[in-house]
Amino acid sequence: MIPNRPRYAARLNAFKRKGDTVAEMLAAAGRVGGLSAADLNYPDHFAAHDPATLSRLLADQGLTLNGLAMRYYTEEGFKLGAFTHPDPTVRRAAIDLTKRGIDACAAMGGSQMTLWMGQDGFDYSFQADYARMWDDTISALTEVADHNPAIDIAVEYKPNEPRAHALMPDMATTLLALSEVSRPNTGVTLDFAHMLYAGEMPAKAAMLAARHSRILGLHLNDGYGKRDDGLIAGSVHPVQTIELLVALHRLGYAGIIYFDTFPDQSGLDPAEEARTNIRLTDRLLDIAALLADDAALAAAQARQDAATATTLVMAALLRA
Amino acid sequence: MIPNRPRYAARLNAFKRKGDTVAEMLAAAGRVGGLSAADLNYPDHFAAHDPATLSRLLADQGLTLNGLAMRYYTEEGFKLGAFTHPDPTVRRAAIDLTKRGIDACAAMGGSQMTLWMGQDGFDYSFQADYARMWDDTISALTEVADHNPAIDIAVEYKPNEPRAHALMPDMATTLLALSEVSRPNTGVTLDFAHMLYAGEMPAKAAMLAARHSRILGLHLNDGYGKRDDGLIAGSVHPVQTIELLVALHRLGYAGIIYFDTFPDQSGLDPAEEARTNIRLTDRLLDIAALLADDAALAAAQARQDAATATTLVMAALLRA
Amino acid sequence: MIPNRPRYAARLNAFKRKGDTVAEMLAAAGRVGGLSAADLNYPDHFAAHDPATLSRLLADQGLTLNGLAMRYYTEEGFKLGAFTHPDPTVRRAAIDLTKRGIDACAAMGGSQMTLWMGQDGFDYSFQADYARMWDDTISALTEVADHNPAIDIAVEYKPNEPRAHALMPDMATTLLALSEVSRPNTGVTLDFAHMLYAGEMPAKAAMLAARHSRILGLHLNDGYGKRDDGLIAGSVHPVQTIELLVALHRLGYAGIIYFDTFPDQSGLDPAEEARTNIRLTDRLLDIAALLADDAALAAAQARQDAATATTLVMAALLRA
Amino acid sequence: MIPNRPRYAARLNAFKRKGDTVAEMLAAAGRVGGLSAADLNYPDHFAAHDPATLSRLLADQGLTLNGLAMRYYTEEGFKLGAFTHPDPTVRRAAIDLTKRGIDACAAMGGSQMTLWMGQDGFDYSFQADYARMWDDTISALTEVADHNPAIDIAVEYKPNEPRAHALMPDMATTLLALSEVSRPNTGVTLDFAHMLYAGEMPAKAAMLAARHSRILGLHLNDGYGKRDDGLIAGSVHPVQTIELLVALHRLGYAGIIYFDTFPDQSGLDPAEEARTNIRLTDRLLDIAALLADDAALAAAQARQDAATATTLVMAALLRA
Repeated sequence: MIPNRPRYAARLNAFKRKGDTVAEMLAAAGRVGGLSAADLNYPDHFAAHDPATLSRLLADQGLTLNGLAMRYYTEEGFKLGAFTHPDPTVRRAAIDLTKRGIDACAAMGGSQMTLWMGQDGFDYSFQADYARMWDDTISALTEVADHNPAIDIAVEYKPNEPRAHALMPDMATTLLALSEVSRPNTGVTLDFAHMLYAGEMPAKAAMLAARHSRILGLHLNDGYGKRDDGLIAGSVHPVQTIELLVALHRLGYAGIIYFDTFPDQSGLDPAEEARTNIRLTDRLLDIAALLADDAALAAAQARQDAATATTLVMAALLRA
Repeated sequence: MIPNRPRYAARLNAFKRKGDTVAEMLAAAGRVGGLSAADLNYPDHFAAHDPATLSRLLADQGLTLNGLAMRYYTEEGFKLGAFTHPDPTVRRAAIDLTKRGIDACAAMGGSQMTLWMGQDGFDYSFQADYARMWDDTISALTEVADHNPAIDIAVEYKPNEPRAHALMPDMATTLLALSEVSRPNTGVTLDFAHMLYAGEMPAKAAMLAARHSRILGLHLNDGYGKRDDGLIAGSVHPVQTIELLVALHRLGYAGIIYFDTFPDQSGLDPAEEARTNIRLTDRLLDIAALLADDAALAAAQARQDAATATTLVMAALLRA
Repeated sequence: MIPNRPRYAARLNAFKRKGDTVAEMLAAAGRVGGLSAADLNYPDHFAAHDPATLSRLLADQGLTLNGLAMRYYTEEGFKLGAFTHPDPTVRRAAIDLTKRGIDACAAMGGSQMTLWMGQDGFDYSFQADYARMWDDTISALTEVADHNPAIDIAVEYKPNEPRAHALMPDMATTLLALSEVSRPNTGVTLDFAHMLYAGEMPAKAAMLAARHSRILGLHLNDGYGKRDDGLIAGSVHPVQTIELLVALHRLGYAGIIYFDTFPDQSGLDPAEEARTNIRLTDRLLDIAALLADDAALAAAQARQDAATATTLVMAALLRA
Repeated sequence: MIPNRPRYAARLNAFKRKGDTVAEMLAAAGRVGGLSAADLNYPDHFAAHDPATLSRLLADQGLTLNGLAMRYYTEEGFKLGAFTHPDPTVRRAAIDLTKRGIDACAAMGGSQMTLWMGQDGFDYSFQADYARMWDDTISALTEVADHNPAIDIAVEYKPNEPRAHALMPDMATTLLALSEVSRPNTGVTLDFAHMLYAGEMPAKAAMLAARHSRILGLHLNDGYGKRDDGLIAGSVHPVQTIELLVALHRLGYAGIIYFDTFPDQSGLDPAEEARTNIRLTDRLLDIAALLADDAALAAAQARQDAATATTLVMAALLRA
């Protein structure tokens, strides 16, 4: 058994009802029970409260700060890119905004900034100068990593949306970029649904991440491998989820498990949905802990024996 | 609980070692234990034995005949199509071959011919006259259905392969065609992996099939939704498999469960792989039977309450 | 050559800047030059203006009304469905709203209502009762079709989004539903990007539509076959676009060509993007008209000769 | 304009009729006219002829040797992998076979060995030890690269088939591996259809390849982005093909263009199909050469102006 239960967080905006303040969203997250951490988005979650107030609001709910996550909103001019925006002024604004976010993170005693570069991509062939975009991304990542070496920079890749093609669509591309950045305070955030629709086997992607960089975050959710469905963790791909959890167990990942799901889209009550995520993940973690120490399974894997491996895994899953 | 265990069959060619005769493949299937039926491919499995001999070989292994399945091999001139071949002579040969297959099926006391029209498709825009292909398919299906009204004709759709686009790629297209054919001895065979890479939710496709035609066969297997992976049933999508089994339970499907898997491709021993399919499907059927009678689940579905439904389903799956 | 240029329309919301009224959006569409028709969304485009005013605003810009398109907004309670909403009250509200939309359409002298049932779908296995959803859709479609037989009801299918699975994801499913509805004033709207990510070959889907129902609308755009990218028509799949235009030419489709694109997402000026759509489609229509009368191409198609067909098509495309 | 036409090669096995020897396949390739090079597969194309004879047969047809390509056949025990086979004996056999292939390449005066590690993958979660497979691949690649530093080792990635997941599925994963191998005589072979179904934009992948390794080969073909369709080059994605050719032009790629297509699957005469590939690619190269020097296009790309870029590209493509 995994000795210490992992700490869970959930997407704060999942709790947002029309007109809600961050304080109300945090209170709703607190009422779930079982969530022990939260991420805040920068700059939007800081619009009405300063870092000190936000720290207090978190503490009031018994939540620790997992980290901040940058948002480069279309409405604020980042439609054609943040770190790769063709206008140097806008690109500079994106970098500076990120630095202010890192400062806010540090001010709250946080240790990690997650970057999802959703606007840094392209829609058409011949729309973009890929080499220039790549250079701009490397130099911007380097600059924000160097801004405060005590804050980890976690890149969260995603194949597409809002752009038709993202510059950082998958694990290996992200690792290539981070190898150029070459800063110890950089790494990746694994998002299960993003991995699925990048065509990846999540546990294999985790292996590459651990080998070439650092795993700084884990977003659990599920989907059908075509888009970012945001479903309850384990609800579609329990075996692939368990395989990922086993891999992370072996790699010693001790970070937060963050449920990056969209209950609202399926008409679900966010608190009930969060509790379902927690209950299900608790169970999947138990199974993962058993399998992580299963010598027969390791032996089957060593000889690529899928019949034995599948029998063992499904027996653990189904208690068959 | 489902009172009567379903009968299982497995793809006979999965047991084929180089140089094996049909007799040896049947013997191998018999040694699995747990298989009670088999399908034979026409014409290849009839190359060395006549129907009477094949019936005896089946009986020797305690196997009943589930039915025959047509194969229109590329080497025999069907590369550009069987029922839609642009050359009327080749098209006629495909129809006549099918009729002889139906006769062989009847001679063996069988009741069902499965048609997978793999060559009836197209690779390029402007390669084919879709309306002519459609007409040719409808008239050929009608002709072979009328050849012997006592033999059911089951169409097994698949999105692609060998052709880049199949004429019958998914459930609804197949049902449209069968509505034109309008013969009571026609229906569809559900293949789980084909459904996945057709983008379908299998249980929903089953609902459409039952509403517009008849479900004549069930091929279980699994995959990643991109191609016909042929993996062990339930190994990737246990929840979608159970949902399909619940749907079939409610619809009263009493036919064979046929494992259409490719153990060879993954280096698996076919007998061991077949036993894994049986063991796992036994368990999934038990879970399906429980869920089929679960009033709380039905109530959750009636209000589209996915948190409750997922909690109930995963509890049954994981015995959580 | 196609004797009469088709009339073009563009997505009105593509012209919306923050705070714009419908009048300003129509004025922007009018300034494009080359657009001769427009669709209005119901109810949102009718929030500030009555039908008579909207008719005048259209006339002021030299635009005819192509038709109305229903929108069932999440914020208005339709998150879990419109025609399939589990709450009978909400479902009734969706049907009644649609009838009011049909009345508004008739009041403006329009002849067509487009229904995109985006919320009518499901996210999870076991979330929904597919048979009930199907029944509810059939009866609602029948009721709205019968509300005013002079107004055509065009169903626009789409594989997913916002729901993970749509109830009407592709052409053949839609045609099956319309066959049950069995009303002469029903049909389908073809959306090129939706077809691509439904895995369809657009010209083949058009053949099925013409055979089993009526083609009531054509949305041109383009994409990469994974989601609804909304790119400039012909920019990614010029050959598949031309094949569709040839098919529609032969079928005698004389309706509007509506550009359903998302210029905003790619940072494009909507007027300039609309003009690019028009210019490119003009050229593709010329090529389509040439190919529609090409006896050598028809002969190549009749024998499935893709080398000759591709040579002829690419010669026309590239003027090689 | 591109001053020197590139040299073309075609897949030799495309010309194979039942019972054909390599000599007959080379003669068929020679009769195409327009092909100036060929690749040979090792070991199968060397089964009946020694390297000296093969060199003479090539010369007889006016063909130069582009290089060799390894084939690790399932029948020869490589079903579960070549460089990653769990049995050290089989793995060693794969490495030694590759070295003999490299020797044969050198004996014929060739300079390049292409490795497509099709069997090095996995089908199931928990089937394989990813880290061990990765290590085994790196050490094997290093060993074969060091075997003869005068021979370039080109890795050709592919998302899947025969295995459900390849260890080297895409460009960035391949580049990560080659960064570990760190040998100057290694690089990648771009295969257009593989790129498409890896979800890549080909020109962007080429940028990454040039930045992190060397582009050693180019396989042109086309498809629908779901599998390795092997269609005529430019027949589906002419714009993406041209963008790739522009990128390679700018990068100074001077290697062979190899048509990796499957005419047989579509019932095409391989010679006629090869001539269609050549004719079409000649034209696409002309367009690419024009666009490569188009200052207005470069300026549009610099500001991510897709309307202008698309207008310029489609004008060049369609001569509109």
